[in-house]
This record gives sequence, structure tokens and C-alpha cells, in this order.
Amino acid sequence: MRSVRPKIVIVGAGFGGLEAAKRLAHQRVDVTVIDRRNHHLFQPLLYQVATAALSPADIAAPIRSILANARNVRVLLDSVCAVIAAEKVVRLQGGAVVEYDWLVVATGARHSYFGRDDWSRHAPGIKTIEDATDVRRRVLLALERAETETDKLRRDALLTFVVVGGGPTGVEMAGAIAELARKSVSRDFRSITPHCSRVILVEAGLALLPAFPKGLQQRTLQSLEQLGVEVHLGAAVTEIAANKVCVGNDQIAAHTIVWAAGVQASPAAEWLGAAADRLGRVKVTPELNVPNHPEIFVIGDTAACGDGHGKALPGIAPVAKQQGRYVADRILGRTRDPFRYRDYGNLATIGRSRAVADFGRIRLSGFAAWLVWCVAHVWFLVGFRSRLSVMLSWAWNYLTFARSARLITGPVQALPAPAAAPLKGAIQ
Amino acid sequence: MRSVRPKIVIVGAGFGGLEAAKRLAHQRVDVTVIDRRNHHLFQPLLYQVATAALSPADIAAPIRSILANARNVRVLLDSVCAVIAAEKVVRLQGGAVVEYDWLVVATGARHSYFGRDDWSRHAPGIKTIEDATDVRRRVLLALERAETETDKLRRDALLTFVVVGGGPTGVEMAGAIAELARKSVSRDFRSITPHCSRVILVEAGLALLPAFPKGLQQRTLQSLEQLGVEVHLGAAVTEIAANKVCVGNDQIAAHTIVWAAGVQASPAAEWLGAAADRLGRVKVTPELNVPNHPEIFVIGDTAACGDGHGKALPGIAPVAKQQGRYVADRILGRTRDPFRYRDYGNLATIGRSRAVADFGRIRLSGFAAWLVWCVAHVWFLVGFRSRLSVMLSWAWNYLTFARSARLITGPVQALPAPAAAPLKGAIQ
Repeated sequence: MRSVRPKIVIVGAGFGGLEAAKRLAHQRVDVTVIDRRNHHLFQPLLYQVATAALSPADIAAPIRSILANARNVRVLLDSVCAVIAAEKVVRLQGGAVVEYDWLVVATGARHSYFGRDDWSRHAPGIKTIEDATDVRRRVLLALERAETETDKLRRDALLTFVVVGGGPTGVEMAGAIAELARKSVSRDFRSITPHCSRVILVEAGLALLPAFPKGLQQRTLQSLEQLGVEVHLGAAVTEIAANKVCVGNDQIAAHTIVWAAGVQASPAAEWLGAAADRLGRVKVTPELNVPNHPEIFVIGDTAACGDGHGKALPGIAPVAKQQGRYVADRILGRTRDPFRYRDYGNLATIGRSRAVADFGRIRLSGFAAWLVWCVAHVWFLVGFRSRLSVMLSWAWNYLTFARSARLITGPVQALPAPAAAPLKGAIQ
Repeated sequence: MRSVRPKIVIVGAGFGGLEAAKRLAHQRVDVTVIDRRNHHLFQPLLYQVATAALSPADIAAPIRSILANARNVRVLLDSVCAVIAAEKVVRLQGGAVVEYDWLVVATGARHSYFGRDDWSRHAPGIKTIEDATDVRRRVLLALERAETETDKLRRDALLTFVVVGGGPTGVEMAGAIAELARKSVSRDFRSITPHCSRVILVEAGLALLPAFPKGLQQRTLQSLEQLGVEVHLGAAVTEIAANKVCVGNDQIAAHTIVWAAGVQASPAAEWLGAAADRLGRVKVTPELNVPNHPEIFVIGDTAACGDGHGKALPGIAPVAKQQGRYVADRILGRTRDPFRYRDYGNLATIGRSRAVADFGRIRLSGFAAWLVWCVAHVWFLVGFRSRLSVMLSWAWNYLTFARSARLITGPVQALPAPAAAPLKGAIQ
């Protein structure tokens, strides 16, 4: 009896994979979810971990716990080495081999430095919990060191924060760093004042938040400037090294650089031997299949899926979730239509009481949009416990201007010393 | 005018140093607090981070924030390289040299492996946030790996947790691991059941919690056994290696080993060229001074201070805090008496609704003691925000039996593979 139940393997428990697993829970199928992390991460709030507003556990929940009640779902902590489509098996790093009748690949994306991987050392991005606590350490340590630094040039570099990329993540990071460096911590330091800090947002394109309408892009720019962020548009980064960023021919001395510019799909296209687009995403059929493999689906940031108007769908959570539900429905035989994305709107936050929201005809900015953003993000957070905790943290941070997770953890010594080679002297 | 104010340097912002700084706040003195971490850590609850009940930020607060309102106190994030008593200066790793009129050394203690430092790789202790998240990773990874392990011997080793040391930390860790491994996670796994796990507490002495009266020691033993912990008394650890612990001539195959057996003072005695006891603690005068240096105080775990009855005071938070207040009062000229410790009682928790409390004539155990323990620990936590968050987490964990911070972060691959050399086969 058991052997006739279809075996479904889902690789990756991000928004897409988890949604597919939830949809397949309690059905007459056997589901195996494989992820190399034990937790599902609510990436849209990761920048708040990086800026000390939330704790990692607030926005991450064990995959096992989320799926605990679904007795037809098992969860494996492991990495995939290979997919052998001819035998319909997935080979795992731990040595196990898992058979499937249906395979759902939802392995997400990682940073892309456009071929300059050496930049990653100096300009980390934020995709994982470790990335976020690393950026948090850098930002907080820069402030600590600036407090005792007596050389003006070094001190200015320590208090200069550059965010590369003007998409939602870049805008959120720039706003949050400005709030942290210029407001939240001003009471605690003796020698640095809020006006010592510079936060610079560099975007190669001509507008922030390219997915938003022009009016809201303009509001975003104004809001960031009100927060004290210097926004450089049409400014391509040409070099990044320890303590400096080159933008065109200008050089900015900055101790802390955050990368929010490019992403690249995980190497699923290689595993599958499938055609990929420029960003490494698998070119899927309108049914989200790998061509000629109706039993293999690719969803989320790993898939290059058209929106029906010749453009690719963006790499955002709602797309991944709808795709996850869609493939589950296809596997269960509930639909035969091609996938269609329903766009319910677009949200981005800039800082305290500042956000933009685009729901087609309705466009909001400022406090109203920020409230919508808060409600939406708490709503979509997995787990009642996390919601309570995040609401508590936000209420606290809002009322007190404090940041509740200002911890410097990890190797303090491992970071590059403040302002290295070019600025010598002053301190023995 | 400013130059005549006494300059006080406090090294270390644990319980002792922080209490001294708070007492000196808003007085006509200039205080410099130096710590190599940016946060004050509430160590008594660190084991709850290690067992996924609390997040690091719940029990750690930036030292700067705690002292933000005291305008006569500055905080430096740095390490001390040397104390030059003849010149009354402290030399910092960052290069700065700080003068003092009064010096308070409160640098705490670290683990001691009794000369077997090679054991630390296999049996980490918990003194810092990183230690705690490391232990958390080990415990949670062991459960994850056990879920997929098909070889019985390997699986048993993965599900065997050994805690070395029967003091308060060891008792708390053993109880908390038993709850985590046997209760909290049982719902989430498919192939391991609560009864698969073994939690073993090994103590070289003949009783648990040596500082407590006999009756409560007995209750502690019973409570641990009710939680399913195997307690081995009079059992000295003779060897620790990857995946095994030797106790006398017996060998226990265990993937996860936690060290809670010995501490050693930080190397302050070397800096000061002062006489130290067996544990590296500076032998101080009854006024907590280094002999012949009335301007240098040593407090907390770094000091060997008699209790007036020929015994040394234990290395616990109340001692450090009272000593911190005492040295501040001496510096301010408020007291000329020698230090006297007032013992308000002793608390230790074992697990959910289980604790022991010794207030001299009043002795509690079970639920009543546990309530007292909860209230006392929330009360002494620094910061209103942390208190709220910890109460919320505890209430949640109590009601749902869940653990809210079950994150595996950091390098998953870096851990030793499950059950290495001795147990081959089964998995390719």
C-alpha cells in the first residue's frame, strides 16, 4: 500500500519549498524536505538582524517544527551533491540516496559580485543569519573604534557606511544603518555624535527601487535624504578594497561596506544539466518544469519564469510561495493550467515610520505605508512565538529609539584593522 | 578643576566591574570601563542559550547602554596587555595608555581543563555567547544526524550527551539537555523517540551542588533522575576524545560532551605580579587590595577572598556584585571596614518546575524553589526589555514545551563527523 504513494522530494525550505511542503502535508503522498540549514529563514527581515533590531531566532524557525504535524513529511538536514534524473534519485552529501517520483528544486539564490568575488571579503551581503551577524559586528565595531580613534581621517572612515545597490534590500539597509548610527546609539557614546556619521547609498541605475512607480521612487529618495543618507544614482562601483570603495573615479574611504547589488541563482541548473539565463536561473516551462522533465519542477529564485509579458518574474517571496503552491497542486492533479503570478502589490520600508507601498491603483508612502509594511511582515512571519517577539521588539525599539540586539559576537580580531595601509601614523 | 577628580579604571564589565561602575556613576570621579566585549553578559542564564531556550540578545546588553546616563563614565572596547603599577597606567592592545589613580580588576574566570587543554575541542564549556551557540549547534546537530543515522552504534553515540561537573552549571545543563532531547523535540522527529536519548552527568565528588545542604543535594539527584538523567558520582573523567569520554575504566561513546567542571581565573595575577592561589586567583587583602597596592583592587572570580572562616568565597554573581559595591565605597571614602560578604541564599535550577533554594533556615525544592529562581533571575537581569523578552520566552516554552531559539548557526561542516574512527561501515 505504502509503496504506491508518490514520493516527492523538495530541495530547499525557503519560501517556495516550504509552501509546497505545507500544501502537500496530510495528502496521500510521501514528502522529503532536504535543506542544508535546520531553519527556515524569513529573509525580508534579515536586514533588521544586521542592524541590531531583531535577534536571529526571531526570524528563523526550525523546519522540523513548522512541519511537525505533517506525518507524511520528513525533514533531512543535508546538502544535495547531485540529481540523477535518469534514475530519479537525489544524492546527498551525507551519503544517502533519496528516490523521487516528483522533484521540486527550490534552492534560492546567493550574492553575485559580477565576477569580482574578491570584493566579498570587504563588502559582505546579507543572505544568511551568519551574514547578518557579521554585518552587525562590523557596523557596531566601527562605532566602537570610532569612539576611541583620535586620527580624524581614520575616524571619518570608521564612521562612513556604504551600501551598494538601490533595490529594496539596499534601501532598507541604508535607512536602518542611518537610524542606528545617527539616532539609536547617539546617547551611548561620548566622543562621536550623530552628525559624524555618513551613510552612502550607491546605485548604478538611475532610480531607487526599480520595480516601483516613479512617484514612490521619488518619495523613497526624499525619505532616505531626510534620514541623512547620501544617495548616489547612476554611480557604478568600480573597485572595492579594505576600507575603500571606488565609484567611477571617486574614492570613498569607508570602513563598513555592505553589498546589496546582485544575486545569482544557486547551481541547480548545473545539477540538472538544464539551460540557464544570465543569472544562473533555470529556464523553466510555463508549468515550471525543466524542459522534457515533467517530473522536475524548479521554483523561486532558482527559476527564470516569465510573467506572460516577456519579462522575468522578480526574485521575491510572493512569487516563490505562489509557485510552491502551484507545483503542489500540479503534483496532486488539482490543476493543469500553466503558472500565473498574481501580483498583490509591492512594499518596501525605509526606516522608522517611513515606507512605500504600491498596490496598483492605491499607492501609499510615509506612516500609512509603514504600518501596512509592519502588519504584513508580522503576519507572514512563521510561528506565533516569533510574531509576538518581533512585535515586542519593534514596539520597544519604536518607543525608546533603542536597538535591542546590539551584540558584537564572533571573532573581533578577525576583522581588518581600522583604516589600514593608506592612513598611517597617529596610533602606535 | 577636572584634573583633580580621581581617575578610576575598571577592567572587565561582568557583575563585579559593572556594579562598581554603577556605584561610581554621577560621583565626582572619572571612570573608564574597559572590556574586550561590547556587552555585559548575564552568565547564570547562558546555559539556556546553549539549550535553545533563549536568544543571546535576551541575556546580554551593551555595556555602553547600561552606563549611558552616567556622563562621568566612559566605556572602551579593548583588551588589557599590561598593568604598569609603578606608573599607574594600563596599556591596551589598541595602543592606548590609560592612567589611573584607582584600578579595579574584575576580569573573571575561564574554563580549566586541569592541564588537558586538548579536551576543550571535544568538550566545550560555556562562558561566552559563542561558547553557548557552539554547544547549541552541537546538541541540535547531534539530534539531526541521529534522525538519519541507520547504524545503531553511531546513532546511540549521537544521542548520548555527557555533562562533566556536578556544580550548578552542570546540573542546569544536564537538566536542560534532558528536557530538550527527551521532551521538547520529540514531536518533530520521525525516527528518534525521547527514550533513545541518554543524558549522563559525571561528577568526581560524592555529591552534586557541593555548596548546598545534604537534603537539597538529595532532592537535586532525585529531580535529575526523574528527568531521565543518569548521574555518576565519584566518577572522575580520565580521558576525552572525539566521540568518547572515559570515566575511570569505563568508556562512554558520546557525540556531545559539555564541560562544566573547572574554572581558572583570568591572568590578572600575572599582569599584577601578585601571588595567586591554585586556581590563579589573586590573593587579596581583607580590603580586596593587592598586597602593598592599596590603589589596586581585585574582585569577583579573579580574587581569592576569604569568607572569614578560613574558606574562600565562591565564584558567583552575588559575591562579585557586593565586592564591586564595596570597592566603589572605599574609593569614595564611604567605608574603612574590611569587605564582608552577606550570603542571602543559594539557588540552583534543574528543569521545568524543578529547583532547589537554600536560604539558611528556609529550604525549598520543587515548584516553589523554581518560582523563586525564575523571579530572582528575571529581577536581576539588566534592562527592562530583556526582562520582558525572557519572561515571554519562558512563558511560551513552559506552555508549549517548545524551545524558541533552536537555530543551528555557524559552520556545520566544521564539526567532527558523527562517530568517527572506531565505528566504521553502514554509510558510504
